[in-house]
Amino acid sequence: MAANVLVLFNTPTDTAAFDAHYTETHLPLARQIPGIRSTTLSAGPIGTPQGPAPYYMIVQFGFESMAALQVTLTSPEFGAAAADLFNFAGAGVTILMYETRDA
Amino acid sequence: MAANVLVLFNTPTDTAAFDAHYTETHLPLARQIPGIRSTTLSAGPIGTPQGPAPYYMIVQFGFESMAALQVTLTSPEFGAAAADLFNFAGAGVTILMYETRDA
Repeated sequence: MAANVLVLFNTPTDTAAFDAHYTETHLPLARQIPGIRSTTLSAGPIGTPQGPAPYYMIVQFGFESMAALQVTLTSPEFGAAAADLFNFAGAGVTILMYETRDA
Repeated sequence: MAANVLVLFNTPTDTAAFDAHYTETHLPLARQIPGIRSTTLSAGPIGTPQGPAPYYMIVQFGFESMAALQVTLTSPEFGAAAADLFNFAGAGVTILMYETRDA
């Protein structure tokens, strides 16, 4: 079975600084992480049935399998990208990892 | 741009009852909703870097566009599936809607 990592970023106080750091520093680091099959970013505001979500951006990484995901998590490139979260995601970030199946 | 709906179900007190209702009642209702391009379910436990997540199941629906998603939200089939959430998702559910772009 394939596996997903969902990264939900809480809305930062300075969205322009977040955007700049994400695009110029974090995304280039993330692109070097081995084993990622697909990357999907939210674009624009995130809504809920009740109104705006507390999240500013959602990123989904797709993996071939949970085994491939585990290999990725131990790579130095992943470690560098994870460490960089402290530089721009101080508002908080939720990381969810799970196997997936199509319905 | 494509669009996603993410549905994050909080962990229910009775997971067996949740599973039975989801499979036998909710999924058949969800399958009738028009405009959904893809459905991906989490399978098994959902983890975080700190340990188990408070979520029991994550479902992702993919749409051709935000316009297609908006049409879906006004369909009677969507209304029936949304109303059914009250029958099994009393532990809480988070619904997030957003446009997506591939990176």
